[in-house]
Amino acid sequence: MSTLVFGHKNPDTDSVCGAIALADLKKKLGEDIAPAMQGELNPESTFVLNKFGVAAPEVVTSYAGKDVYLVDHSDLAQSPDDLADANILGIVDHHKLGDVTTGQPLECWIWPVGCTCTVVASMYKYFDIEIPKDIAGIMLCAILSDTVIFKSATCTDADKEVCAKLSEICGESDLEALGIEMFKVKSAVDGTPIRELVLRDYKDFNMNGKGVGCGQLELVDLSIVDGIKADLEKDIRDLKAEKGHHTVLLMLTDIMKEGTELLIASDDEAVIESTFGIAPVDGKLWLPGIMSRKKQIIPDLEKTFK
Amino acid sequence: MSTLVFGHKNPDTDSVCGAIALADLKKKLGEDIAPAMQGELNPESTFVLNKFGVAAPEVVTSYAGKDVYLVDHSDLAQSPDDLADANILGIVDHHKLGDVTTGQPLECWIWPVGCTCTVVASMYKYFDIEIPKDIAGIMLCAILSDTVIFKSATCTDADKEVCAKLSEICGESDLEALGIEMFKVKSAVDGTPIRELVLRDYKDFNMNGKGVGCGQLELVDLSIVDGIKADLEKDIRDLKAEKGHHTVLLMLTDIMKEGTELLIASDDEAVIESTFGIAPVDGKLWLPGIMSRKKQIIPDLEKTFK
Repeated sequence: MSTLVFGHKNPDTDSVCGAIALADLKKKLGEDIAPAMQGELNPESTFVLNKFGVAAPEVVTSYAGKDVYLVDHSDLAQSPDDLADANILGIVDHHKLGDVTTGQPLECWIWPVGCTCTVVASMYKYFDIEIPKDIAGIMLCAILSDTVIFKSATCTDADKEVCAKLSEICGESDLEALGIEMFKVKSAVDGTPIRELVLRDYKDFNMNGKGVGCGQLELVDLSIVDGIKADLEKDIRDLKAEKGHHTVLLMLTDIMKEGTELLIASDDEAVIESTFGIAPVDGKLWLPGIMSRKKQIIPDLEKTFK
Repeated sequence: MSTLVFGHKNPDTDSVCGAIALADLKKKLGEDIAPAMQGELNPESTFVLNKFGVAAPEVVTSYAGKDVYLVDHSDLAQSPDDLADANILGIVDHHKLGDVTTGQPLECWIWPVGCTCTVVASMYKYFDIEIPKDIAGIMLCAILSDTVIFKSATCTDADKEVCAKLSEICGESDLEALGIEMFKVKSAVDGTPIRELVLRDYKDFNMNGKGVGCGQLELVDLSIVDGIKADLEKDIRDLKAEKGHHTVLLMLTDIMKEGTELLIASDDEAVIESTFGIAPVDGKLWLPGIMSRKKQIIPDLEKTFK
């Protein structure tokens, strides 16, 4: 039985490409291993895999009895429901340390960088394994996506150095153009059901016993969602009710203006005001300079909930 | 304010030497950092630091408001009581993943090898920093101690390879002799209060809500403790009562015969019988081939408590 490596629920490009790359590396290190994902590809990831001719991992939702590696998360809420019945061999991630625990020693490479693929690329270097051209291409895209073309507060020198190397290997030299091409795909909303947009890059958190959800749409221009903003606002209120959450947020991030309009559905908007120091108006808030859920939204919100 | 790096409560040689080595590496990478420890040096660690002329880290028990790295543990029970008020920058470890979580991304190097110092030595290699001779000596001793001179089930090829390299750097070529010299110090019980022996290498665990303590004495010959075995048995019963634990165990490990006599104080000895498949007699059990608490005792016990 082969080992499976997979990213978080509602997979994004880093979760998918990180799993593919780690499986490639581990296979070359002698492990019988395959990438998987917990849900379907989003449009951005589909574009990235197609561009470099890489096959999509199989969708697998049950991991009981399997040996597994986790990438891009270490939170139980983002893991398969039956993770407790799997044998966790390792975690490769770039987030805060979550509540996953193990009964056996394991292998963790968790670094405070912009993207899991930056860590995986560094592992190739550590083990002195050559990165294949197609894998270099999809890792490069994952880093450009997670760091919003190096503009995000999460972006580090390590991310930029790794991208320079991946760019050489895959032959993509204009990273800004590649990034914008990808974000245009990511920005597309036409014909997509509202709920699908809300969940496109959405994560649930347990903050001191309260359920908090936060989605994010990264857009090349906020005007793209002008016509559907009221529908998005209604939908996060519905989602909050369905999940029994305290708060559901949707970040509308303008990657060119470098700021985020936050849509808020909450039992207590004062939590948002005390976190960001600005009072929401009509359930909305413009946060200049804020582009990273992981670094600029979640930690501050968790402090408020404490 | 400088960052502190420290190992678990009741520090052993790996916790002390791993903290010293990681602080040395991080200092050379530009961080303002010092090693610390949560308690006094044990006799083995004192011997090791003296042998290579390395200063003992300062004893620090409160870490509130400090930036910290954890080595050799990721369990809250083994961390400082005020860890929640510290800012965890990273964890370097070789155990199962414990219940420490963070609010911010961090740096974890956690590998399934025999010793934290094996991971730290690999980090020197990754960052291309030369290991100083004295640091190589104490890391070598930590690995020989944790792997019981390569005899423990936890020992991996990575541990042996790192030791070969450290041995070259520090000039200690007879590792078996160095190991036995160290274990003779570790084995000494004369004049040491019984409670101090029980706690010399002792850890508390929370197993499904039940408190379980497990100490270990690694001895070059079990006959060393013949005269005090009854006192040790009484003392773990006392310790169990004081802590309100379900079970307190003491492993008397014969490193030459490669087995462990387990002394048991428990509310329910059936737990031990069902874990190891042998019924204790008079609160004692001989477990041939069992030398590792981490790999051969704790995981199986945790399964039983589930």
